[in-house]
Amino acid sequence: MGTARRYGAFLTFEGIDGSGKSTQSRRLAEVLRQDGHDVVLTREPGGSPGAEEIRSLLLHGAPDRWSAETELLMFTAARRDHVERTIQPALDAGKVVICDRFVDSTRAYQGITRGDLRAKVDTLHALMIGLEPDLTFLIDMNPGVAHARATKRVGAEARFENFGIELHATLRAGFLNLAHRSRRFRVIDGNKSEDEVSGNIVGIARKFLKES
Amino acid sequence: MGTARRYGAFLTFEGIDGSGKSTQSRRLAEVLRQDGHDVVLTREPGGSPGAEEIRSLLLHGAPDRWSAETELLMFTAARRDHVERTIQPALDAGKVVICDRFVDSTRAYQGITRGDLRAKVDTLHALMIGLEPDLTFLIDMNPGVAHARATKRVGAEARFENFGIELHATLRAGFLNLAHRSRRFRVIDGNKSEDEVSGNIVGIARKFLKES
Repeated sequence: MGTARRYGAFLTFEGIDGSGKSTQSRRLAEVLRQDGHDVVLTREPGGSPGAEEIRSLLLHGAPDRWSAETELLMFTAARRDHVERTIQPALDAGKVVICDRFVDSTRAYQGITRGDLRAKVDTLHALMIGLEPDLTFLIDMNPGVAHARATKRVGAEARFENFGIELHATLRAGFLNLAHRSRRFRVIDGNKSEDEVSGNIVGIARKFLKES
Repeated sequence: MGTARRYGAFLTFEGIDGSGKSTQSRRLAEVLRQDGHDVVLTREPGGSPGAEEIRSLLLHGAPDRWSAETELLMFTAARRDHVERTIQPALDAGKVVICDRFVDSTRAYQGITRGDLRAKVDTLHALMIGLEPDLTFLIDMNPGVAHARATKRVGAEARFENFGIELHATLRAGFLNLAHRSRRFRVIDGNKSEDEVSGNIVGIARKFLKES
């Protein structure tokens, strides 16, 4: 490379629908920008033009249009594009990247829908993506409360309808299981007020960025 | 499954552009049908509606639209769909599947364009596809002769323009290298007349289907 390589920080938000990921990732981005950081706020699925195109190919047509394995390959292709075009260039330029959902969502969702694919998700990620977040906020909350919140939004409601509260409880357990197995997770109590949750997250992020 | 599972035979054709793969796969299909076999003739890239859609997403836009890694993931997604929807159901029903190009083309092309991706091609195939052909005809020929033939067709000409005769010589060496490492390959002299090449292939295929 020749020159010293700067490297930013890669922060992700995970949790079930209605847990406040999008709101909290936006609020954290605002605060860190006010602190003087160069922040890129992005999200999955999508996050780059190519990834959005792959996503739209996945969304149209009948529900059984693609098998779970084909979908996993296409989601991984979309993630690869997102990392190459959006995330990695920002990290290389020393920026703070905040991403609403990343590979842990794929891990958690595959855990409830097709448990036998979980090992493949990890192998495929290690082989073709590699990048793991530096810090992950898991906003943990009661699925019933999340459901009450999510029903206020059309998109989230549609997803809740598909999965149901019971499956969201399983999904929550899956996220907590991931969190217990990796030191990069911070489990945030999402049952508190939006301001309290934000204060909690901002405090952790500022401390992390100062130390890293 | 409960019932005894029949299994057909999966035959593939490989070789550089202009080597006669498409003609010879069609001719073999005709002969085997006359012999009484139930034959499915298919090709890559494509071979199923989903695979065709992924292919068209790959083909539009600027040449650097997708990275080699993202392309590999999308080609693998297309192949997975092709295997699930077209090839495997036919094999399960005891049919003979003849496919014009399969994973060996990906292996050979990655060998010349991005050698460091070759190991990833194999790992990805083993992880997400698994299926290897039972018998592969590599139609081997002089790249100069193949070029003279290919220039008669617009599509093949465009590809030859992209790669050039020298790169086709490298590609040929890559195919021969694959053939020397696996017993399922039969190297066919493609410099002979179309009828001679066909006679050669039909003889091998009939013997194989009788024995298998």
